[in-house]
Amino acid sequence: MNILLFSEIDKISHNEIRVSDYRLQHLKKRLQNNSAPDFTPGNRLRVGEINGLMGSGVISCFTEHCVEIELGPLIEQPPKPLDVVLIIALPRPKMLKRIFREATSLGIKTFYIINSYKVDKSYWKSPALDTKKLNHYLLEGLEQSIDTILPAVHLKRLFKPFVEDELPHILQDRNCFVAHPEAKTQCPAAIPTPATIAIGPEGGFTDYEVSKLIALGFEGVTLGKRILKVETAIPVLTGRCF
Amino acid sequence: MNILLFSEIDKISHNEIRVSDYRLQHLKKRLQNNSAPDFTPGNRLRVGEINGLMGSGVISCFTEHCVEIELGPLIEQPPKPLDVVLIIALPRPKMLKRIFREATSLGIKTFYIINSYKVDKSYWKSPALDTKKLNHYLLEGLEQSIDTILPAVHLKRLFKPFVEDELPHILQDRNCFVAHPEAKTQCPAAIPTPATIAIGPEGGFTDYEVSKLIALGFEGVTLGKRILKVETAIPVLTGRCF
Repeated sequence: MNILLFSEIDKISHNEIRVSDYRLQHLKKRLQNNSAPDFTPGNRLRVGEINGLMGSGVISCFTEHCVEIELGPLIEQPPKPLDVVLIIALPRPKMLKRIFREATSLGIKTFYIINSYKVDKSYWKSPALDTKKLNHYLLEGLEQSIDTILPAVHLKRLFKPFVEDELPHILQDRNCFVAHPEAKTQCPAAIPTPATIAIGPEGGFTDYEVSKLIALGFEGVTLGKRILKVETAIPVLTGRCF
Repeated sequence: MNILLFSEIDKISHNEIRVSDYRLQHLKKRLQNNSAPDFTPGNRLRVGEINGLMGSGVISCFTEHCVEIELGPLIEQPPKPLDVVLIIALPRPKMLKRIFREATSLGIKTFYIINSYKVDKSYWKSPALDTKKLNHYLLEGLEQSIDTILPAVHLKRLFKPFVEDELPHILQDRNCFVAHPEAKTQCPAAIPTPATIAIGPEGGFTDYEVSKLIALGFEGVTLGKRILKVETAIPVLTGRCF
């Protein structure tokens, strides 16, 4: 956690917040670590308002049960978003945390999680897709990368209606790539933004699914002969956009 | 596991292997999955000899306790290595598995795990650094990416002797980059190989450490304002080499 993020709900006065949840636990853990900063009252730490500005705050109280922080000047803009729409077939639920945290830390602000023939149907019933949990993964990504702007996550359980009715509107003026091991074109080293990147499930999108994306203007690209896990392909591909 | 890797020790005759360890468990797990291939005797699966050729094998026996495979023609070369030497400050031990597995799946064949001022000394005592465990992580990376060539991992517990005495010989004719959040130069979208990429610990290399690397010809590069975890920076950076 490189920045403590807060929202209106944490405020105890117009310029003071109190937190007692995982953020407190994280600060305590850092305190146990010798190399960590000092969190005694009077010291500053980096804070940011979710979807707002960043700056610093002064610890006014630090107890076993809560930490109170007086908000210093919050005048710093969060870093510029990475203008990439990431479309991924619903991955194994236990990978969702890592995928959202990591992709958020890379600056992505729009996710579409879609169905695909090779997605195990039971994945859609996973508690990992619970809004509160997803939100927490996104926050962890922001806290890592020092950012405040929460990404939007759209869950699309039906491939065809999404691709036919919604996707054309999402794609306007974007460079669109679908990662596809059998594609003939090597993925470009630099992907120009704004971009849309689609990544299939383990085993890849089916030929039908790829053809639907290509019909919309997606270019099929490969990352070489090696079969990469989805969670590896995401930073490799989106890392090419900056 | 997209390929079953074996070595001399698994052979029960000149052209037959028997496995009963984690590889058997993995095949069983795939069998439970409806979308998995059929492993009844007579069926083929992809096999490869560690540090050797790849091809297919025919299952001759599949029981609760072992699987026996008759080796088919092994005539396929493994994919070309990624000519990148990856130098990383020893990460948190619980991340080693993921880092080695992922970097190996990207085709890296040479790792130097080095010390740095901000590396917690206790990390060097971690059982995760046990040769057998490290080897297993590397194998998992090869099994994912369909490759047979085991990477070499060098553990260097002393920064200065490594950088002063060994590193100059490793670097010859390589493009050398050190990821450094405070660097002024943006990391190039395409990193030309052969390359050497150095990534510091959480919190980064110290100024002294960076200056030692720069004196050897490393270029300090940044991936932007966002602070990325080491495990995210690795695929982003090495993914730029292919």
